[in-house]
Amino acid sequence: MTNPIACLLIIGNEVLSGRTRDANLQFLATRLGELGIPLREVRVIPDVPETIIATVNEVRAKFDHVFTTGGIGPTHDDITSECIAAAFGVPWVVHEESRALMAEDYARRDPPVEMNAARLRMATLPEGAVPIRCSITSAPGFTMGNVHVMAGVPRIMQAMFEVIAPGLAGGVPVVSRTVHAVGVFEGNIAEALEAVQKRFPALDIGSYPFYRNHGAGGFSGGGVALVAKGTEPEAVDAAAEAITAMLRGMGAEPVEGEPPG
Amino acid sequence: MTNPIACLLIIGNEVLSGRTRDANLQFLATRLGELGIPLREVRVIPDVPETIIATVNEVRAKFDHVFTTGGIGPTHDDITSECIAAAFGVPWVVHEESRALMAEDYARRDPPVEMNAARLRMATLPEGAVPIRCSITSAPGFTMGNVHVMAGVPRIMQAMFEVIAPGLAGGVPVVSRTVHAVGVFEGNIAEALEAVQKRFPALDIGSYPFYRNHGAGGFSGGGVALVAKGTEPEAVDAAAEAITAMLRGMGAEPVEGEPPG
Repeated sequence: MTNPIACLLIIGNEVLSGRTRDANLQFLATRLGELGIPLREVRVIPDVPETIIATVNEVRAKFDHVFTTGGIGPTHDDITSECIAAAFGVPWVVHEESRALMAEDYARRDPPVEMNAARLRMATLPEGAVPIRCSITSAPGFTMGNVHVMAGVPRIMQAMFEVIAPGLAGGVPVVSRTVHAVGVFEGNIAEALEAVQKRFPALDIGSYPFYRNHGAGGFSGGGVALVAKGTEPEAVDAAAEAITAMLRGMGAEPVEGEPPG
Repeated sequence: MTNPIACLLIIGNEVLSGRTRDANLQFLATRLGELGIPLREVRVIPDVPETIIATVNEVRAKFDHVFTTGGIGPTHDDITSECIAAAFGVPWVVHEESRALMAEDYARRDPPVEMNAARLRMATLPEGAVPIRCSITSAPGFTMGNVHVMAGVPRIMQAMFEVIAPGLAGGVPVVSRTVHAVGVFEGNIAEALEAVQKRFPALDIGSYPFYRNHGAGGFSGGGVALVAKGTEPEAVDAAAEAITAMLRGMGAEPVEGEPPG
């Protein structure tokens, strides 16, 4: 079978300006890999309606699942929800059940929080959307078609994702093994590594140099991390063994897992 | 005048799989803002030739500058350079000056490093490309048209960027002021903040909640960070003053800069 594939849209001027460092990509990339829905593209786009609408329509046609983060709060720059409605060509309407749950929650607070027009926007969803309710906030995310709209705040995004994760039609989990070798240059192993890649065409064999700083003088040393990744655990194991043998053959001391201290 | 705009392509399976957390976006977003070349879109794409070629051709037509990170090392999964050549429809050829500089560098090492076929790939550039040489490595990045191709390793990427930065046709620097207020909910200020945005239509006024953890019990408290951003310093100052006055009017104690401790 072919795994379903995913796209992530990170919506927000604050990431593009450098003010905020995104903390959602790595979490979603990892979790989606575990679910067998590998992430194939990420876009970071600004809070501009035409851009959001056009991008959502482009990627929801190309990917099995689209996840969005950001822009579902109560302020004027939170425009993701109404843009999703526009992208799907449906009205953006108060979701009565969500409004009632939020009003209940706000009334229980001490002091009580007012359900004003700004907060009502957070209970306003594209018609037909299914709310995503998590334990952290009464303001919902939502799923519309294959588009899953989540908060930008990492804690809330993660909670929302775990609510929908069991219902996502996943594929075969992506597994990986990583072999590190200190003192090995990429340029010395490139040819042998390519031969391993050719032996295992269904896998992704990646090579990533790492660096170490020794003392105040800065850079000195490091090595390579070699990664075998795919949906066939036996092939991943066999490739990791082949990589280990290759490194030993060069006189290096391969170590699995984290870079050796 | 209208500022030129930029797009960043982060090329690499390792970011999409969650193995590596990108560390380049925030650096480039910040530096490009300072140079008056605001970053308007980021895409993270896999090491797939057709995807790289199509994406480069799409975004180089839409943006004044395109920056790429990743995929210019010596291993089989480093395919950015040859894909840029294909995108521009030019041959991918050994750049003699770069080859000579690299060979010199390798010969000087102790022990000397071999200029093998894998390393020669790093001296192979799209015909007509201008090499980007930095002090950290003799293997170059390059500029081809409006596409600036840099390493993925943050230290090297940053050095390469600073080499080309003085030559980029920049615009008016983007400046910002941030006002924090503890204990203020976004839902309570949304309407007043939107009024500030309407007074300063040329600026981006953003609202970002922040959270604090107190002790082992986890979340309790936080507030909002309100950001005024744009290319007109006087307007940014006036908007920051208006935001400060708005918060004081609600009984809050606004603080500029970092979130108050």
